[in-house]
Amino acid sequence: MSQSNIEIVLYDLACTKNICFSPVVWRIRLMLNYKRIPYRTIFLEFPDIEPTLKELGIPPSDSGTYTVPAIHHLPTNTHIMDSARIADFLESTYPDPPLPLTSELGRKIETQSRKVVGTAFSASVLPREMGILSPRAQEYFRRTREAALGHPLEDLLDPEREEQAWAAVEGAIREVGELMLTHQAEGPFILGAKPSYTDFFIAGAMQSARTVHEDVFERLVGYPGYREVYEACAPFMQRKD
Amino acid sequence: MSQSNIEIVLYDLACTKNICFSPVVWRIRLMLNYKRIPYRTIFLEFPDIEPTLKELGIPPSDSGTYTVPAIHHLPTNTHIMDSARIADFLESTYPDPPLPLTSELGRKIETQSRKVVGTAFSASVLPREMGILSPRAQEYFRRTREAALGHPLEDLLDPEREEQAWAAVEGAIREVGELMLTHQAEGPFILGAKPSYTDFFIAGAMQSARTVHEDVFERLVGYPGYREVYEACAPFMQRKD
Repeated sequence: MSQSNIEIVLYDLACTKNICFSPVVWRIRLMLNYKRIPYRTIFLEFPDIEPTLKELGIPPSDSGTYTVPAIHHLPTNTHIMDSARIADFLESTYPDPPLPLTSELGRKIETQSRKVVGTAFSASVLPREMGILSPRAQEYFRRTREAALGHPLEDLLDPEREEQAWAAVEGAIREVGELMLTHQAEGPFILGAKPSYTDFFIAGAMQSARTVHEDVFERLVGYPGYREVYEACAPFMQRKD
Repeated sequence: MSQSNIEIVLYDLACTKNICFSPVVWRIRLMLNYKRIPYRTIFLEFPDIEPTLKELGIPPSDSGTYTVPAIHHLPTNTHIMDSARIADFLESTYPDPPLPLTSELGRKIETQSRKVVGTAFSASVLPREMGILSPRAQEYFRRTREAALGHPLEDLLDPEREEQAWAAVEGAIREVGELMLTHQAEGPFILGAKPSYTDFFIAGAMQSARTVHEDVFERLVGYPGYREVYEACAPFMQRKD
């Protein structure tokens, strides 16, 4: 695609693999790829997110923080931060093909999976994220995450503790996966024949886990529902940078 | 207004005066009052924000945090968090009277005032916020803010240090105020005859400061521009709860 067609600049999180690995940015990237919106990526290291977005004149979130994804929509010279706000903007600006942003089933799946898959990912993905960060980003990541955790990241890498974390949520992971199969008779996506934001929420988290540690991904696709959603979304995950 | 007409539930930050004092919530409240949207308020103590919004099924921001304002739009049963996203929603759902959400002049004024008025407010408003919080909220406020500051809140209340903070930004505060007068020939608002989101950004911050400590407000209206914007917005600040 020639540079002159670009409509969106996507600010993404850098890693040493030079591809997207943030689950939050993946949701937006899936939307861009699905809607075939011409974009280019700028990867930012963790410590560069705040100064870069501030310099662009983007206001912080209500909690005073700066995060990726952020986008620059070139035709209107608009800068937007926060995945929910960006999704609203993309859906209203690029309505074809449409992407339902919310549904009763989708809300239920997103809320439940934040809890249960989130617990498993905290045990398995979070401590391994260091492995794909640059030394500068590692330093930042360790400092901020350990302040929140109250202990070294390495404490999370105890194999027994990791197994316990997964075992504790296994039933709940299975239940969420079964919810994803509610409309399987009508098609491979959560709402049936066409994707919704909830598919991108789930597939984005799985793609992120896979980029950090293939074993976590393999474990998740062992439960019914997850592989179906991931494979249905795979065509929109070809482009990763 | 009868309960049955209510369209919006506004989640606001509680204080002992039982009125709105958060500058971020004031922006949205000004919009609701200006557009005459029927709403009712639920005030939340600092430590109750996250559990309450989580229980409503609202997803956290991209930085993983929960903040007010949040709204529940009853006609569509939609929950939205973050002032920027709420402003987008209100403007598209209630377009009459229209409120320009952004402009080149407005972006400049918002960015500059965050820097300069923000510095003065950190010296004068932040340490006095404790004075209008309940004991439970005080405990939470002290713990989180002192962790960020790295020293006791009371250290900020040194009169000499406060004067120095204001003196350091005096010229810049004056410059931002002069920008607010750019269109004074056409009307009392920043863009002239009609309000824009930038007026509500400025007036909301001033109303917040006034609720915490009248002296800070008096000091600010001593500079050209600030009193004009505040008084132009006063009709939309009558309702405070």
